[in-house]
Order: sequence, then C-alpha cells, then structure tokens
Amino acid sequence: MSVSLSPLLGVDARLGEYGDIVRAAIAEGVPLDWPEEWLRIVVADYPARGGKAIRPALCLATCEAFGGRVIEALPSAVAIELMHNAFLVHDDIEDSSQLRRGIATLHDAHGLPLALNAGDALMVLAQRALGANVATLGARIATRVAGEFSTMAYHTIQGQATELGWIRDGIVDLGPDDYLELVMRKTCWYTTVHPLRVGALIGSWGSADLEAMVRFGFLLGAAFQIRDDVLNLVGDERAYGKEVLGDLIEGKRTLMLLHLLRAAGGSDRSRVVDFVRTPRTARTPDGAAAILELMRRHESIQFAEHFAAGISEDAERSFEAAFGRRANTPAGEFVRALIPYMVERSI
Amino acid sequence: MSVSLSPLLGVDARLGEYGDIVRAAIAEGVPLDWPEEWLRIVVADYPARGGKAIRPALCLATCEAFGGRVIEALPSAVAIELMHNAFLVHDDIEDSSQLRRGIATLHDAHGLPLALNAGDALMVLAQRALGANVATLGARIATRVAGEFSTMAYHTIQGQATELGWIRDGIVDLGPDDYLELVMRKTCWYTTVHPLRVGALIGSWGSADLEAMVRFGFLLGAAFQIRDDVLNLVGDERAYGKEVLGDLIEGKRTLMLLHLLRAAGGSDRSRVVDFVRTPRTARTPDGAAAILELMRRHESIQFAEHFAAGISEDAERSFEAAFGRRANTPAGEFVRALIPYMVERSI
Repeated sequence: MSVSLSPLLGVDARLGEYGDIVRAAIAEGVPLDWPEEWLRIVVADYPARGGKAIRPALCLATCEAFGGRVIEALPSAVAIELMHNAFLVHDDIEDSSQLRRGIATLHDAHGLPLALNAGDALMVLAQRALGANVATLGARIATRVAGEFSTMAYHTIQGQATELGWIRDGIVDLGPDDYLELVMRKTCWYTTVHPLRVGALIGSWGSADLEAMVRFGFLLGAAFQIRDDVLNLVGDERAYGKEVLGDLIEGKRTLMLLHLLRAAGGSDRSRVVDFVRTPRTARTPDGAAAILELMRRHESIQFAEHFAAGISEDAERSFEAAFGRRANTPAGEFVRALIPYMVERSI
Repeated sequence: MSVSLSPLLGVDARLGEYGDIVRAAIAEGVPLDWPEEWLRIVVADYPARGGKAIRPALCLATCEAFGGRVIEALPSAVAIELMHNAFLVHDDIEDSSQLRRGIATLHDAHGLPLALNAGDALMVLAQRALGANVATLGARIATRVAGEFSTMAYHTIQGQATELGWIRDGIVDLGPDDYLELVMRKTCWYTTVHPLRVGALIGSWGSADLEAMVRFGFLLGAAFQIRDDVLNLVGDERAYGKEVLGDLIEGKRTLMLLHLLRAAGGSDRSRVVDFVRTPRTARTPDGAAAILELMRRHESIQFAEHFAAGISEDAERSFEAAFGRRANTPAGEFVRALIPYMVERSI
C-alpha cells in the first residue's frame, strides 16, 4: 500500500485525509469470518460514523515530523482509533448515553449485550493491529509500542474508574486540580500523549525523547477536553452529535460544574449538589437547563474558556520543546495548528 | 520467586496448588496507584472468589510436561486467568446474571458502570502480564505467546457474538454441530486450546507441534462445557455458585435445549420455542422448571451426558497424540486426569 498526502492543507482537510486512510484500514481489518449481523456490522458501526480522527492523525503526523513515513505508523494509529471506539462503546453504556455522532448509541441500536461484546472486539482488533508491527518495525520497536499501548490503557481505565466513582458516590468536594488529574488520565493519555509518543518513537526509530511529549500532550489534551465539555453545554446538537446537556444529565464533573460548586453559595450551591446527587434516571432536561442557567449567572463557562485559553498558550511553548527542529516540518506545522483548533472547534 | 509443587496429588489438590500460585500473582499484580473503592476492589473481586483455576493449571502443567518450569509460564497463565475473569464480568452483564461463585455478580455488587470498566481493567492487566514475558522468555517467544493470546480472544469474541445473536434473534433451528462450533469458539479456545498451546510453546521453547493441541483442547473443552450446562440444570446452587436454571432463564442454546427442540413435537416443541423467544425479563423460574420437566421426559440430559462421555473417550486418544512421550510425566498425568474430571465434577 502506498500513501501520499497533499503538502499544504488546512487542519480540517488534513484531518480528513489522515482520517480516510485510517478508516479505510479499519474497514479492511474487520474479519470476514466474523458473523455479519451480530459482530461485523456492530464493530464497524462507530468507526464508520466519521469522527474527527484527531488521535490517529496526531500519531501519523508526529511520525512524519520525526522522519518516518505514514505507512510505518499506520497499524499503531489504527490501534489507537480502534481503542478509542472501544472506549466510546463502553463509555456510552456506562453513561446510558443516547446519541453518538448524531445517531443512536451502539447499545440502543443493537442491544446492550452485542454492543458490549463489540467493544471487546474493538479492543481485540486493536491488539491484532499492534501485532502487525512486528513484521514491519521489528520485534524491538514493536514491543516498545505494545508497552506504550498498555500504559495508555492502564491510565485511561484508572481515569474512567475515578469519573464513574465520583458520579456513583456523589463526590462534589473537588477543585480544578482534581479535574486536571482526571482529564490527564481519562482523556490525555489516549487522545494526545500516547499518539504523540508512539508517533515520535516510530518516526525516530526509537531515538526521540518521549518524556517531552507528556507535558505537551497533557496541555493539548486538556484543551481538547475542556472544549468538549463546553460544546456539550452550548453546542449545536446536530453538529456536535451528542445530546446537548448530556454531561449534566450524566452527572459529569466538568470544569464548569466544579467552578459553579465553588462560586455558588447558599441555596444555589445546594441546588447543584442536590442535582448531581439525584439518581441519573431522575435527572431531567429541565433540571439540567436550570444548572446551565446557574453556570451562566456565575460565569462558569467563561471561566472554563479562559482556563482553556491559558492552557493553549502553555501548549504552544511545550510544543516547541517537544518537537524542537521538527516543529518546522509540514507535519510539525500541522501538529502546531491543532493547538488553536482544539479550543476553537465547533464539533 | 521459587515455586515447588508436591509430586503426587489428586486432581482437586493439584488444581488448588496451581490456583493458589496464580491467585497470589494476580493479587500482587493489581496496581497500588489505582483508586481502591472504584477499581482495585472491583478488579480483585472475581479472581479472589476462588474458581477452579482449570485454565491456568492446564497451561502450567502443560509447560511442565513439555520440559519447562512453572515460573516460565506463570505470566501467561496469569494472563489467561485475568482474561477469563474479564469475560465473566462482561458475560454476567450481557446475560443479566445474578450470581457468580455463590454471591452477587459484579454489576449487582458495584453497579454496572464500575463493573464494566473493571472488566476492561482485567483485560489491560492481562496484556501487562504478557508484557512481562519479554524479559523472561525473550522477544521471539513472547511475541508468539502474544499472538496466541490475540487469536484466542478473536475466537472467544466471535463465539460470544454468535451466542448472544442466537438469543437476541430467537434462533432455534440449530443442531449439535452448531452447538459444537459455538462451544469451540466461545469456550474451548480460552479454556483449553490456548492454555495447552501456550504451555507447550513455552515448555518446549517453541519446538512443540501446537496443532495437535487444537483437537485435544476442543474435545476437553467441549466435555467441560457440556458438564457445565448440565450442572446448571441439576447442580446444587450453593456448590455450583450460579443460579440453577439460569441458562434456561437466559435463553442459552445448550445441547439439552437443542436436543429437546429436535426430540419434542407438536405442542411440546411450541412451548419450548415460545419460552426461548419470550423476552428475557418475562422468563420465569416456573417457566424454566416446565422446560426442565420436558427435558427429563425427552431424556435430553441423558443425551447430553452420553454425548459428553463419547467426547471424553475421544479426548483420551487425542491426548496421547498431542502429548506423546510427555503423557507419562507427572504433569502429563495431571492433564490426563483432567479428562474424566471434566465430566465427573460437581462444581
């Protein structure tokens, strides 16, 4: 397979190109001997819904910036996107979400049992994709990539457990530091840190300093997550593809919610605490809209947007430190352009 | 770590010894930095409930029979037991089961979201265990073991999808061959074929013929599964640890059910078809007891027991072919003793 990319393109178009390559590889990789109705269709559903492909694009572009070719990092990028979709499937079940990328979640469309199993299948396919690295990258680099993947999953699961635990046990005594630590684990490792590390590892044939990627990845991923949380409050449901105010209904501890819990006093704070401690099925859209109104009054969304803008500035500096002279390659410029993209995107 | 086993023991005692080694390694391997309430306790729950440890014992004994030491196959045996527990957690959610090893299923005890996530965590820990093979077995053998693991998961997920699909879509036009193909995938790969292959691979340092393990593993695993299905109908709930008649309530296509569907005619058959096509929540213990009564009348349980006995005899022959001269080592004798154990066990 040969892969070529246009040299100059905007972020959206470039994401589209990387995304097309990865989606094609994923579609080709769904095993033909798996039963169609009960597994192949269910497994292929989310990846074909056309997400932004930020994660695999970041991996592929970083590989290029560090001197490698797209094809060398493709199995690892495919594994990242598959794992992302596995997390989405299981996350949607855990949160009882109803919409994903504008249509019914996998468990609503196919029933919970087959959806849960398809999430497991996506993880299995991710591991198979990594297995292909042995032949193309050799056992030494392939083993390091597999270790990076395992570390990424380790942190993601930990972050997910903490978020679910906060919700289940009605934890509200949390500040921005708690939020950032959560986001580092549940979002940044698999969205930015891991794609950056693996791209640099493969592109540099194992010689790049991967530790510098952790700080940049953390800042880039935190900016991404805060924007995601804001879009859930103020976004256009059709463009955004999830239920607007869904995070509030699910009881998610976002930066805005934590700000509101600190900024509001007296009866306002009590209303927020009561809302997030209400059982999930008893939280109504009207109740969520009332919390959103409180967030507007206490300027919680503005706070989060300023917070993300500050993180974004730090990310610019840590990008230079992580990429060094590779910052000025075309692929490096694409990665740099992702920094403002993260806080400006509307989907 | 040094590990020694008593030379002469019955199957139960030997299973207990292997099981203790594996359970200790699993307990040690739950990461201390994971949040206790929301992840560590949930992850450690099923493995500590004390299953029979047939899968890791088969792996460790086969490694010994082929000339290796227990310690060399321990990470792979741990990975197998972790993956088994991950499947149990997700399977219990998919089937809405209530009891596992005599107490509440994980999702009933901790809530579905944290249980589902803990299932994912068990898969992540299995991959980490396999990662440890690189240091002890070298990259070549470790990579082969990881490939075997991936193949095992591939088949298991496929079998699980088929079983869930048969239930969701009310499929009843099935015969013993369909059942055996299902069991080969959903049970045998991870229960017997994979443990045997990996044990022989590690014990022989890559030189053993692994294909001979597929047939023996299939026969051994099918005997195990048929016995499991029979125990669900006639076992003592306290000893067996799952809801008796749970398979009927869940709509599982067991050999007995498929026999009954073929043996019963007229209104009897219609009652069975109606029962398995009733939504899961509307199937009652009384309804299940009525199906059991039909199974007794049509001698479906006897049929399954004779079927398992025939498989067991074939397994003896294929054991000799797969193990060759290693059949007469103490560890080989233990594996041979597992054949009658599979069809005679009461838990």
